[in-house]
Amino acid sequence: MNWPGILEKYQEFLPITDKTPLVSLKEGNTPLIKGQNLSEELGINIYFKYEGLNPTGSFKDRGMVMAVAKAVEEGSTAIMCASTGNTSAAAAAYAARCGLTCSVVIPEGNIALGKLAQALIYGAKVIAIKGNFDDALNIVRSITEKNPITLVNSLNPYRIEGQTSSAYEICDVLGDAPDYLAIPVGNAGNITAYWRGFKRYQDAGRSKNLPQMIGFQAEGASPIVQDKIVENPETIATAIRIGNPASWEKAVQAADESKGFIKAVTDEEILAAQRLLASREGVFAEPASAASLAGVLKQHQEGFFEKGSTVVCVLTGNGLKDPNTAIKQVSEPYSVPADEDAVLSIVNGK
Amino acid sequence: MNWPGILEKYQEFLPITDKTPLVSLKEGNTPLIKGQNLSEELGINIYFKYEGLNPTGSFKDRGMVMAVAKAVEEGSTAIMCASTGNTSAAAAAYAARCGLTCSVVIPEGNIALGKLAQALIYGAKVIAIKGNFDDALNIVRSITEKNPITLVNSLNPYRIEGQTSSAYEICDVLGDAPDYLAIPVGNAGNITAYWRGFKRYQDAGRSKNLPQMIGFQAEGASPIVQDKIVENPETIATAIRIGNPASWEKAVQAADESKGFIKAVTDEEILAAQRLLASREGVFAEPASAASLAGVLKQHQEGFFEKGSTVVCVLTGNGLKDPNTAIKQVSEPYSVPADEDAVLSIVNGK
Repeated sequence: MNWPGILEKYQEFLPITDKTPLVSLKEGNTPLIKGQNLSEELGINIYFKYEGLNPTGSFKDRGMVMAVAKAVEEGSTAIMCASTGNTSAAAAAYAARCGLTCSVVIPEGNIALGKLAQALIYGAKVIAIKGNFDDALNIVRSITEKNPITLVNSLNPYRIEGQTSSAYEICDVLGDAPDYLAIPVGNAGNITAYWRGFKRYQDAGRSKNLPQMIGFQAEGASPIVQDKIVENPETIATAIRIGNPASWEKAVQAADESKGFIKAVTDEEILAAQRLLASREGVFAEPASAASLAGVLKQHQEGFFEKGSTVVCVLTGNGLKDPNTAIKQVSEPYSVPADEDAVLSIVNGK
Repeated sequence: MNWPGILEKYQEFLPITDKTPLVSLKEGNTPLIKGQNLSEELGINIYFKYEGLNPTGSFKDRGMVMAVAKAVEEGSTAIMCASTGNTSAAAAAYAARCGLTCSVVIPEGNIALGKLAQALIYGAKVIAIKGNFDDALNIVRSITEKNPITLVNSLNPYRIEGQTSSAYEICDVLGDAPDYLAIPVGNAGNITAYWRGFKRYQDAGRSKNLPQMIGFQAEGASPIVQDKIVENPETIATAIRIGNPASWEKAVQAADESKGFIKAVTDEEILAAQRLLASREGVFAEPASAASLAGVLKQHQEGFFEKGSTVVCVLTGNGLKDPNTAIKQVSEPYSVPADEDAVLSIVNGK
């Protein structure tokens, strides 16, 4: 199938004009994988929207392709963002594709290895500050207000517009919106985008139902759940390690309007969900992504879902983004001589 | 678009029976990305078949889903393979999906970080031997001959069958086979599979032309080019660090029949191509993958391609598989205080 990328595919639902270049790295069209083992076990129809198979390995490509296309349309030659990693990878890749310069500001020491590798090799100027994401965002906002540089954080309204595309894809594949959309919540732009997307598709007559939006923050970075800014957010799930989300109010509104909620899950629950997803379904997502499944498992234990409900868990990023966190939580490989008997004894062992 | 995975999509071209379970992690349907900047620069139409967007991040998923489906069909409950990393990730993921046990034997110290993380978190038994890939393969062949364990290395004929699917996809997207198919050559199963796929699609009337197959080995691991076994293969491109390829003869035959060739590229050329691909086109592939582009650039310099030729470079694996190799070859991030002026001076600097 010749997928053209989201700008061309969903142009009627996106802010595309005659002058918008249809930039594409073939983002979108990510697989909706049925969790066949977990569905059977839980008695619900669980699907994973595997956003880790976007070109830079996360859902950020959807918003970034839209933001960069608009930047090009507007004549900009430079973009900039603050990032916990995934945004920087996406910004750097689309800037490379379009010949723009790109500067990304990251919190030093809290970026997963794969994401750092990406921003650097795509050719962005990567600036690590001694501060957290919120500090980085403040600096970038201030610089882009005063200089001819396009801000491509989710404050850029085109980012959220591009991210609506995943909701359209889910409806196209399932034939309608699911009963529940479970999603990790960090900077809170994505839950906002999905909700807008589901509503827009319904308004256009392309889907009938609306899902309940159920969002999950990491307990140590759960400002929305606590209803207060978290000064020093802490979680193993670096992609949602955010104490003062940019789309805070819109996220609360999405949860409320849809009769859903935003709750918290612990780092232990996140890591357990990450391992379960990989070892039972063969899907490797980064820790932040697993927050959606962790939340679904927790809600399921509490009898939240009606039997047979359709639940889509958004897996925001590829597990390969953060190999070190994965390796830390599993046993090391066995190490043996290059000898058949030595290998066989491990294969047959417990 | 609701992509069903390769077994269902291309079942008439694959060894599928009524009893073959249509296992799927939605592998295949990987993007064919036009290299728009490089095409303009080189005067050829260059496309990248970005196999890194398969579910476990490499082309190995195509063959593995076929091999695992047949193992399940035949009543097997255990699979095993030797691997430089990508095969082990794919085997472990599909085994998890289908409830099989999986043992993978890897050469100690020569596996990229991401691949190791994958095999472990998907729940395989990972056994590192003090030897190279060829030692690992010999051990695994011997064990699976004597025990009720299915060998899922490319010696398993279903692997190559599954891998033919990428050729069908390329023809479906381009409307026909390209003029040239450039591909990294390691264990040599993939060049064999593409050639078989292109011929089979032509025989079925689904495409008209056949491409010239141009394969590229890493200079330090180029047994086919040297026409002799390399006892201690060495290259930064670990995925093609193989001294005695399993599909040696078939690969030579594919090159000959198609009027193509198999040549060598240096590690420096591979790394330069990897950086170029990322920084000019926004596509991040693992080093082995970049061997195809490195080879195309070298051939282009020698005036090999006619102007306007269509060249598809197979990018076998995701750059995120091997973040350390990427980071080693680029500058470190700038490190500054959380201060606007400090950041701006870097943004504006050279």
